[in-house]
Amino acid sequence: MSQSAPRETGKRDNAEALARLREVLASGDEARIAASVAAFHPSDLADLIESLGDDERVAMLSALPAGVASEALVEMEEEEHPEEILVALAPRKRAELLQQLPADDAVDLIADLDPEERAQLLAELPVEEAGELRDLLLYGEDTAGGLMTTELVAVPHHLKAAQAIGEVRRQGREVEAFYNVFVVDEQRRLLGTVPLDDLILADPERPVAELVVPPLATVLPSMDQEEVGRLMSRYNLVSVPVVLEGGRLVGRITFDDVIDVLEEEQTEDIFRLAGLYEEEVRGEWSDAVRGRLPWLFLNLLTAILAASVVYLFSSTIQQAVILAAIMPIIAGMGGNAGTQALAVTVRRIALSGKAMPGRWRVVVKEVVVGMVNGAALGALTAALSVVVGGHATLGLVVLLAMWGNILVAGFAGSFVPLLLDRLGIDPAVASSIFVTTFTDLCGFLLLLGLGSAILL
Amino acid sequence: MSQSAPRETGKRDNAEALARLREVLASGDEARIAASVAAFHPSDLADLIESLGDDERVAMLSALPAGVASEALVEMEEEEHPEEILVALAPRKRAELLQQLPADDAVDLIADLDPEERAQLLAELPVEEAGELRDLLLYGEDTAGGLMTTELVAVPHHLKAAQAIGEVRRQGREVEAFYNVFVVDEQRRLLGTVPLDDLILADPERPVAELVVPPLATVLPSMDQEEVGRLMSRYNLVSVPVVLEGGRLVGRITFDDVIDVLEEEQTEDIFRLAGLYEEEVRGEWSDAVRGRLPWLFLNLLTAILAASVVYLFSSTIQQAVILAAIMPIIAGMGGNAGTQALAVTVRRIALSGKAMPGRWRVVVKEVVVGMVNGAALGALTAALSVVVGGHATLGLVVLLAMWGNILVAGFAGSFVPLLLDRLGIDPAVASSIFVTTFTDLCGFLLLLGLGSAILL
Repeated sequence: MSQSAPRETGKRDNAEALARLREVLASGDEARIAASVAAFHPSDLADLIESLGDDERVAMLSALPAGVASEALVEMEEEEHPEEILVALAPRKRAELLQQLPADDAVDLIADLDPEERAQLLAELPVEEAGELRDLLLYGEDTAGGLMTTELVAVPHHLKAAQAIGEVRRQGREVEAFYNVFVVDEQRRLLGTVPLDDLILADPERPVAELVVPPLATVLPSMDQEEVGRLMSRYNLVSVPVVLEGGRLVGRITFDDVIDVLEEEQTEDIFRLAGLYEEEVRGEWSDAVRGRLPWLFLNLLTAILAASVVYLFSSTIQQAVILAAIMPIIAGMGGNAGTQALAVTVRRIALSGKAMPGRWRVVVKEVVVGMVNGAALGALTAALSVVVGGHATLGLVVLLAMWGNILVAGFAGSFVPLLLDRLGIDPAVASSIFVTTFTDLCGFLLLLGLGSAILL
Repeated sequence: MSQSAPRETGKRDNAEALARLREVLASGDEARIAASVAAFHPSDLADLIESLGDDERVAMLSALPAGVASEALVEMEEEEHPEEILVALAPRKRAELLQQLPADDAVDLIADLDPEERAQLLAELPVEEAGELRDLLLYGEDTAGGLMTTELVAVPHHLKAAQAIGEVRRQGREVEAFYNVFVVDEQRRLLGTVPLDDLILADPERPVAELVVPPLATVLPSMDQEEVGRLMSRYNLVSVPVVLEGGRLVGRITFDDVIDVLEEEQTEDIFRLAGLYEEEVRGEWSDAVRGRLPWLFLNLLTAILAASVVYLFSSTIQQAVILAAIMPIIAGMGGNAGTQALAVTVRRIALSGKAMPGRWRVVVKEVVVGMVNGAALGALTAALSVVVGGHATLGLVVLLAMWGNILVAGFAGSFVPLLLDRLGIDPAVASSIFVTTFTDLCGFLLLLGLGSAILL
């Protein structure tokens, strides 16, 4: 065997592999092309294909056996648009590719096509398979139905262990990596599962019904994928059955889908908090400009709002120009404290799921934290202002403004995401950018308002 | 069977269950206590225990059978300090609990104890088991060695399929949820795996050696847990073998560990970006103050640095007070653009792993994005300034300052995390708080510097 060292991403020797591949591709010899990548894992092959030009990609996938080509397509990054390669293939080839794939992967692949192209592809498939894909396409991409595969191993409850193993052998040939055997009644309603290891360990004569473990959890096809992920992660499930309202088993979701969901949600949360929407991690600069500029314009409007507060206090600043220097400290520290409260709250919501206990106690906690941190930071900044500015009233103004702003930051950083969540909106939309604008506005108002009232 | 509806977190009916549990606990009747929670999943039981007071927790775990109690302890949140309950139990009981657990879970549980308490616990265990735990304790908590379990099913390569199934039956009784059977040579060096489903499907007379699949990946005990997660997620592995340098099999890591790692890393990334270090999602206000205040003080110092730039330009502001109103717009927009660049870059590094291709091209992309967005935002803000301020030179100053600051933001937001990553430091440490301070400083310098040079 190959004593393989741990491979990290398989991208290290990419350049060399790519050069070799291009040479073989140019030869047009299908057997040589297939042989040159035979040793590759689909994920690594997908990386290689992503490094090719559009025409090369099509030539490559045309030359590969359908089983290899289809798996590589599935492993490509979404933003590389594997579905466009699929469409560019010869009709017979692309139908063959789709048939090789588990139904959930096939649906993911064609879900991004426009309706006419998709209808064309489905028309090229055998009626039964096309019907199955159409059924799956009806579920939203972000739901359990969109995530599940319909291929699974299910045995009737009246079999004995040895018979069940026989049945598993028969069905297992068609099904990729299964970890649990589902047990169903005559109407294909789910009774439970038998872990594969238990089935092997059992006395061959024992009825399967005695080995059945009731499912720890089942999910409906309409369940949000994030909830599915939370459920499987909570109970350490390697797979979870998807059932209809009446209990009929229609599919299963496996751990690898959940890992993908977790990574997706992770990127989304971080991006939203940073004021990024619909941006791809590896996108081009032009996509980044298109994605970010509208939000920056929106932020510009809110920044102008904050600035107009300063403008209104022009004469105050002219009389006590030191306030102009203290302004950014008050506003900035409020923004920082607000961002901290926001991150903790958003994460707490994400980890707790819908049934978050003690929701509003979080706001109380953040206000208390703001009160304490605000007093400490306010006192320090006030002392410094008195030293530089030379009179005690300035210290009082700075203390109150800093204290107030950090308290408000704690409130806004926790209340806004909790409120959004309660309203059914993604709490991460309350990005730090908006909280920052809010604390800017508040900080300016407090400092300059108090300044003109007390100081002048 | 119970046609269980999808349960989301099991916390919904917590209050009622808790009241009932307290009643039973007060009775002190061990059999009744055990019976009252017999139907609970360990995760749900752990939630219940977390709602109890310290003394109740100990009473509860003393009353439960060791198998149930140990699993519930493992499922408790780290911040609830399950190890303290363990230590509070009677010596015989706690030794029994530790012996019930897979070695990796037992190690996680006792890793947070102080050395004397840990030594005491280990002394209460049989020599062999204590030795195994001591071995695992030597690996860092965040490494493959710290993550792995040493319990696994491994068969010698010379067996036939039917013999191997017999061997799996024998070993399998001791091992929790295994998905792959490892195949080893006489020196227990890993040859590969046989998926459990393949073993069942195989002709009973076929030698195991013919069924062996070389491992897609193996990891060394020293590998960072984040790398392990990336590897398993990339290749959709349900488990990965841990081997020593010579190829000797010492443990395995399963998908559920990886899901935990992913969630942990996700929290860590979001927290670091928000300037939070070592804070617990469900921590108390006093912990939050202790965790956040030092960083806010550090930020205060950098904010004072930025403010002192403003202070230096006091006379400029006095002569053109409108600059004080424009200041926060320039600084704030720079901060927003920098946060966006930072989030994309940090996420890109996290998803790519150590071998990130095209590292420095990311900086070029972000500078280009900053150039385009800066020009657009600068032009708009400049136009507005001319309308409000009444002279064209002010527009020029504003345009150049905004443009420059957003360009700098793109550079800093991408270069700093990439540099940190190259230096082996977590790139998320380049939190948006620091980028924001940097763009504040830069924005003030540009606006006020250009203002005093061109405007006055």
